[in-house]
Amino acid sequence: MKIYEARVAPNPRRVRIFLAEKGIDMQYVELDVMGGENLSPALRAKNPSTKVPFLELDDGTCIGESVAICRYFEELQPEPPLFGRTPLEKAQVEMWNRQVEFFFIQPLMFAVQHGAGIFKDRMTPIPVWGEESAKNARAYLDQLDRHLTNNSYLVGDYFSVADISLLCAVDFAKVAKIRLSDEWPHLQLWHQLVSGRPSAQA
Amino acid sequence: MKIYEARVAPNPRRVRIFLAEKGIDMQYVELDVMGGENLSPALRAKNPSTKVPFLELDDGTCIGESVAICRYFEELQPEPPLFGRTPLEKAQVEMWNRQVEFFFIQPLMFAVQHGAGIFKDRMTPIPVWGEESAKNARAYLDQLDRHLTNNSYLVGDYFSVADISLLCAVDFAKVAKIRLSDEWPHLQLWHQLVSGRPSAQA
Repeated sequence: MKIYEARVAPNPRRVRIFLAEKGIDMQYVELDVMGGENLSPALRAKNPSTKVPFLELDDGTCIGESVAICRYFEELQPEPPLFGRTPLEKAQVEMWNRQVEFFFIQPLMFAVQHGAGIFKDRMTPIPVWGEESAKNARAYLDQLDRHLTNNSYLVGDYFSVADISLLCAVDFAKVAKIRLSDEWPHLQLWHQLVSGRPSAQA
Repeated sequence: MKIYEARVAPNPRRVRIFLAEKGIDMQYVELDVMGGENLSPALRAKNPSTKVPFLELDDGTCIGESVAICRYFEELQPEPPLFGRTPLEKAQVEMWNRQVEFFFIQPLMFAVQHGAGIFKDRMTPIPVWGEESAKNARAYLDQLDRHLTNNSYLVGDYFSVADISLLCAVDFAKVAKIRLSDEWPHLQLWHQLVSGRPSAQA
């Protein structure tokens, strides 16, 4: 099997870190997403959403969406568990992963795409929406900072895929001129903690 | 335990249908979301995101996000499985649920909130973003219609939580003036199929 990705994009890194935590080796195929290689008919046939990363199994079946790929490997190799260990923890991981996605990653991507105008060959940038999204992304970091006052990770003392999602987004956020600062001290501590894991180099 | 919700909103219905499929009884507390009851300090303390639905356990622990609540009950009562039966199916359910969310539900919500200006007391409506989002939501229905040419449900012949997500969104879409029509014949067939399940009345 192999994963098609673009090394600089934040979502492929989520999967690389996840696989590093699991100790799973993978073959990667780099796509020129800026040049539109992912939009070719051949790649669209494999991955209709055109987003990276996507996983191709040996029988040709393809799975898109970083979290769906992670879940596949969680099922194949449960240890160490990264989606939660109990029903409650699994629900909490799902909640945090979704909230990070909806309230930070998506606004961040809108800020980048509508603000900087990358991908304007394939979408309609609306600069005012880019600005509003950057504001929303920052406002969510305020909320997260409060949450991390009493939690080492997003789900208490348990490192999960939700932390991986947030790490990749926070590191990518400099593209939208959002950088962790003393404004968010607990988020800074959390960032040091998760960045210190060997998987963060993946 | 109990679920705080708003009966007319699409996300609470996702959970009601899911629980109906599992045959799980639940106590519901209706919130006046339009009037901002969900924004009160007491409810914010339970559910910082302020979104409905959220589940409150008997010990006071709260879980937000419709899909996180569904996953909690999938873990507590696995039968019938609605998040997939094999590693591959679980990944495919996750993929479709996410794509429906990102490419249809979110644009639909943006179309409603930025177009109709509901919730303008708590966000900044950008009408041009509302229009663009409505266009994106419709374009995704074209893609789904092609996918459903060869699939009874989103994941082949397996009914899953992803179908529940899509059903609730499609039924809500009339608010953004998006109605299923002959333009999307396979989606219409799918809609008849899933609407015919007793759970759809939940």
